[in-house]
Amino acid sequence: MIFLFTDFGAADIYVGQVKAVLQERAPKSPVIDLLHDAPPFNVKAGAHLLAALAARIPSGSVTLAVVDPGVGGPRAPVAVLADRRWFVGPDNGLISVVAARAKKCEAFSIGWRPKELSAPFHGRDLFAPVAAMLARGDRKTPKLRKAALAVSFGADDLGEVIYVDHFGNLVTGQRAGNVPRDRGLVINGRAVRYARVFSDVKQGEVFWYENSLGLVELAANSASAQQVLGLKPGSRLG
Amino acid sequence: MIFLFTDFGAADIYVGQVKAVLQERAPKSPVIDLLHDAPPFNVKAGAHLLAALAARIPSGSVTLAVVDPGVGGPRAPVAVLADRRWFVGPDNGLISVVAARAKKCEAFSIGWRPKELSAPFHGRDLFAPVAAMLARGDRKTPKLRKAALAVSFGADDLGEVIYVDHFGNLVTGQRAGNVPRDRGLVINGRAVRYARVFSDVKQGEVFWYENSLGLVELAANSASAQQVLGLKPGSRLG
Amino acid sequence: MIFLFTDFGAADIYVGQVKAVLQERAPKSPVIDLLHDAPPFNVKAGAHLLAALAARIPSGSVTLAVVDPGVGGPRAPVAVLADRRWFVGPDNGLISVVAARAKKCEAFSIGWRPKELSAPFHGRDLFAPVAAMLARGDRKTPKLRKAALAVSFGADDLGEVIYVDHFGNLVTGQRAGNVPRDRGLVINGRAVRYARVFSDVKQGEVFWYENSLGLVELAANSASAQQVLGLKPGSRLG
Repeated sequence: MIFLFTDFGAADIYVGQVKAVLQERAPKSPVIDLLHDAPPFNVKAGAHLLAALAARIPSGSVTLAVVDPGVGGPRAPVAVLADRRWFVGPDNGLISVVAARAKKCEAFSIGWRPKELSAPFHGRDLFAPVAAMLARGDRKTPKLRKAALAVSFGADDLGEVIYVDHFGNLVTGQRAGNVPRDRGLVINGRAVRYARVFSDVKQGEVFWYENSLGLVELAANSASAQQVLGLKPGSRLG
Repeated sequence: MIFLFTDFGAADIYVGQVKAVLQERAPKSPVIDLLHDAPPFNVKAGAHLLAALAARIPSGSVTLAVVDPGVGGPRAPVAVLADRRWFVGPDNGLISVVAARAKKCEAFSIGWRPKELSAPFHGRDLFAPVAAMLARGDRKTPKLRKAALAVSFGADDLGEVIYVDHFGNLVTGQRAGNVPRDRGLVINGRAVRYARVFSDVKQGEVFWYENSLGLVELAANSASAQQVLGLKPGSRLG
Repeated sequence: MIFLFTDFGAADIYVGQVKAVLQERAPKSPVIDLLHDAPPFNVKAGAHLLAALAARIPSGSVTLAVVDPGVGGPRAPVAVLADRRWFVGPDNGLISVVAARAKKCEAFSIGWRPKELSAPFHGRDLFAPVAAMLARGDRKTPKLRKAALAVSFGADDLGEVIYVDHFGNLVTGQRAGNVPRDRGLVINGRAVRYARVFSDVKQGEVFWYENSLGLVELAANSASAQQVLGLKPGSRLG
């Protein structure tokens, strides 16, 4: 199974080109779109969101992870084997939170290069072929060599908004298990209390809860917390 | 074949998690996204849109139908067998128009529960596993028990806008077969005439026609009827 | 393999209906979404974008190509075999740039009609079934007859913006191989220089580069060239 986590845009021209490569090179691997609208240019937010989603990624799978504002520049490609799941993408920190939180983890440089490598689209030309090789169980052709990650954000929580969903819910990089539930949060000078589910608060009221990824999420019942609070990816909590 | 009809957002982080569950539990069933941008929080509009789309859903298939503002609250999960097609989702009326219009229909409560059930995401944790069970022909594990639907909107047409497409066309819950074609509609005090196709009216002119789902749809040639008429899901006709 | 190139909207209710038809009629053909947000009503821009994407479409595949503002009107359906790849869609010029640039190309009228043909959705009712037939190697049922294209935009470059991606990058119909790299472009009275990649220019600076489809693209480092330049599909260069 191949998972895709990118900022290519779900509605844009890029994902189809990647899938055509995967289909030709690993036709038996189902491909699942985890997210194609990771916050653009924000590698750190993407790294924390990927780490939260990774709890659901089964062992034996390959994840293509690309948020890559430095594409075509000096950053290198990397393959990471974290708790028996491959992650392939740029070595710019995107995979580093998954790596730092894994029980068992190895990182590898990638020696293989395609015949034609476009400057702006390594997702299609380099990462997708390597993901397909790994999905087929081929660890030889990518020319992997053990190497440390060049950029790492570490395993700690990130007290920032890392994603805004289409309901306007604000996902943070703070794992809910680390936050006492009787403690309200203060966001932009406004007290925000804990509730278990949407229907436990009044219509329009802002609250925080443990979302389905185990993260602190700011939400509002039948309304947009983003509009009420005026936050966006990168906004600090507290 | 498994169909998905939700308000999870086509570009958001939720659909991929649902598909990962389906892929693991029913790997041989193709999955087709019918819609992930059903009007949020508007169960009635969703119920009528699903009923119109259901005319195209083949027998033997399973449809996961989730527009669920009350998730985590008291509403129950339900499985409906309508004209040999399964529909799985919350018992909040969403599946009730399909059920009321079916020639043959049975509704069932669902006794099965997952080991871990997140409060906000029953789509992933409960409805997707049950849909996968039914897609594999397993009617035993879900622990189905015959039961009446708790909420039903009935079989009648809904004289409201139920969906706005990306062209700005306004889909209504009014079946076109029930409306005489020589009768103009009056929308917001403006007369709107019938036309067969877009190219039968002048550029920018608003008209109504029978859309490809058999519903009355308000449209404008090469323009957005939504912008011209200022309507949205929930706006009443006439 | 079946590719989809349409203006149906990636998040809308149309693509799923098309895929249900393809799944029923050609269950063994993987389906890949190339693009569902081609500029609406702009057949010429779509024709040039499709021609650029077609360089990546493998031989033996079938592409359903539908940008069809005249649907239900007099324009005819057409099937084009261009360098061993089928393209099926309306004969309104959309496939004509692919056809004009192919080394070997034949165009065919389509005699087959479905039992029920909705006026507004030939993509589902006519083009999808024919695409499925061709994907299964069935050239008989569609009743193909050799015929010239009714509308052709020719093989030449188009000096216009043909697509804006979700980063705000402006894709043009000008192939980069035809433009000297030392030559700056003048857009809206503003000089725009060439750069190889985003990281070669300052943050926010607008430049042009050869994109991953081989086209001239106007971009800005970590910013939206669309916002800086104020262009949209159809805007002329120079």
